[in-house]
Amino acid sequence: MIYLDNAATTSLDTEVLNEMLPYLQTEYGNPQSQHAAGRLAAQGLISARDRVAKVFGCRAEEVYFMSGGTEAGNFAVKGVCAAKKRGHLIISAIEHPAVLKSAQQMEGLGFEVTYVQPDKNGIIPPEEVEKAVRPDTVFCAVMAANNEIGTIQKVEKISEICTRYGIFYYCDCVQSVGVVPFPTSASAFAVSAHKFHGPKGVAAMYISGGSRISPLICGGMQERGLRGGTVNVASAVGLAAALERAAQGKNNTYIASLRNRFVGRVLAEIEGTALNGDPVLRVPSNANISFEGCDGANILMCLDLRDICVSTGSACSAGAVTPSHVISAIAGEERAKSAVRFTFGKYNTPEEVDRAVDVLKQIVSQTRRDKSGLD
Amino acid sequence: MIYLDNAATTSLDTEVLNEMLPYLQTEYGNPQSQHAAGRLAAQGLISARDRVAKVFGCRAEEVYFMSGGTEAGNFAVKGVCAAKKRGHLIISAIEHPAVLKSAQQMEGLGFEVTYVQPDKNGIIPPEEVEKAVRPDTVFCAVMAANNEIGTIQKVEKISEICTRYGIFYYCDCVQSVGVVPFPTSASAFAVSAHKFHGPKGVAAMYISGGSRISPLICGGMQERGLRGGTVNVASAVGLAAALERAAQGKNNTYIASLRNRFVGRVLAEIEGTALNGDPVLRVPSNANISFEGCDGANILMCLDLRDICVSTGSACSAGAVTPSHVISAIAGEERAKSAVRFTFGKYNTPEEVDRAVDVLKQIVSQTRRDKSGLD
Repeated sequence: MIYLDNAATTSLDTEVLNEMLPYLQTEYGNPQSQHAAGRLAAQGLISARDRVAKVFGCRAEEVYFMSGGTEAGNFAVKGVCAAKKRGHLIISAIEHPAVLKSAQQMEGLGFEVTYVQPDKNGIIPPEEVEKAVRPDTVFCAVMAANNEIGTIQKVEKISEICTRYGIFYYCDCVQSVGVVPFPTSASAFAVSAHKFHGPKGVAAMYISGGSRISPLICGGMQERGLRGGTVNVASAVGLAAALERAAQGKNNTYIASLRNRFVGRVLAEIEGTALNGDPVLRVPSNANISFEGCDGANILMCLDLRDICVSTGSACSAGAVTPSHVISAIAGEERAKSAVRFTFGKYNTPEEVDRAVDVLKQIVSQTRRDKSGLD
Repeated sequence: MIYLDNAATTSLDTEVLNEMLPYLQTEYGNPQSQHAAGRLAAQGLISARDRVAKVFGCRAEEVYFMSGGTEAGNFAVKGVCAAKKRGHLIISAIEHPAVLKSAQQMEGLGFEVTYVQPDKNGIIPPEEVEKAVRPDTVFCAVMAANNEIGTIQKVEKISEICTRYGIFYYCDCVQSVGVVPFPTSASAFAVSAHKFHGPKGVAAMYISGGSRISPLICGGMQERGLRGGTVNVASAVGLAAALERAAQGKNNTYIASLRNRFVGRVLAEIEGTALNGDPVLRVPSNANISFEGCDGANILMCLDLRDICVSTGSACSAGAVTPSHVISAIAGEERAKSAVRFTFGKYNTPEEVDRAVDVLKQIVSQTRRDKSGLD
């Protein structure tokens, strides 16, 4: 099997699992418990939080563990709205569904939302963000790198704008670990471990000290009262271990070389192909390509029959019948319908890339032949 | 170490971990992904859901995975309120903080809440629940068994009342697995894996088909659109495996024998002790005892110094300076201040019980001597 869907999820690194295992085996205490078993678990959690804080470049008290990037996005939008009671939100049109749908829910509660459109390369223009600012703007979300097209956003500029106007800025960093520096100038950002060879079901969120945000999940006093529920220590440790490895970005050059080899060959050897999103300002792992006259979902299926794993949009929208909202926004619905996302990882090889291109060539030409036969 | 805090959390069973490992190692796909790696993960998830549904006695489509019991409690309260927009809630005064604090948040949004007090044994009288019903009552929460005093509630009667009045009834089953039959006559209930030798960070919730509830965490179309975020397949599998074992309740007799041995000896051999909560209608694992003239937190600390792990309230309230809201409600604040919770599990032994009693006798008598010296 050739796995080219590393933006959907990644394999768990063995060393990361090995760091988790003690907390799945002997150190099973509840880190809130006031006894030896609890303290052993709490030590694991404290150490994990310290490690994450060091990588993030923030204080340990600014790191919050939770169940995933989707929870983080919901928490950011709804937590700020709950704290502010009313106001206006600025949301990039290419945010993850977690943020977009949360914003829609807030509209239902009387908040107003401005959706900022990307340019044709998939970049959200910071000046458009600034134009959208109103006196009652309380929240802004523009992700660091898009999950479908991998486009890297102008996080520092947006951060600067939001700071200037006193707006809570949430920066989804789920797809940018090791590529975009962590934006501690934002009010909050989050990463999800399973996107960088850590376990599923755990995210770490930076929330700047002094930010006004209400808990989405309340209950016990875990996570300084901002996220109730017994903390999953093993997974927090796994996140920290995976983050330390990923944040160094030491595989970026290798991953980019695979991606560039792939994109270079596809664009050169298959007619009617186009790369979606900015060719330069994008994460090294991502290639999102439209195949003129083809249906992306059909290519995915044909590749799957040949044991090659890719995606049409994000896994979170998989199975959806509507074409990608991201590619529709930058290049129109036709391009969106024919788009396929290939995302490379450190375990892929040049041989896999070549095999994928070869199979893809056959599939696209067969598809087009079938189609012209039908026409 | 003698671990008598099994209501806070339990060790992960080796066979359960072994069932999880394939999904932490080779089957790492995103179950939403439309390719072979995704399907392998999805098969694990489907099988886990089927296993849970079989134990719950419901349809697989009525089982929702999420990050824990606290999320489930928040989801129930806030999800129903969001769907109903306005109305009145009935909440037992001894619910978990996840439910109590969620209800308080809803009060802030204009919902009205009636808190039903328990009787002196810690039982919520169903007739008091019925008296609280108003024409605009939309939600009721009365847990199956209390987390602090282990008291088993009259779930079937409350379920019947709520059904009669068309009220959404959420029954927190986090502490009752294997003891109280799963109340599929309720609108929803939830269990948390780490309370029965499964992994931390995962819960399964039953939501009756046709119930009106809005997602707490929205995003992708996972969990039939009611809970966004990449599903943690390994943990879902772990929950299913642990639930199958725990739901049989085959250790109940053994665990009750340990608990009864403990309670029998403590009440007989230590003066000024009283069991909190109903002596009969309680889960087999729980002993909650007040020690007249002592401070529960001090006993906990002294036991900890002798390598015995217990709790004063729930772990979710650990570190709190206010005495237990549950014991205060049934027996007053004095009893609450002097209460210690001992919760037994299948890995405890009669020797551990005897050792704990012996140490406890010394500690209590020393504490009382010190105190009378100070007076």
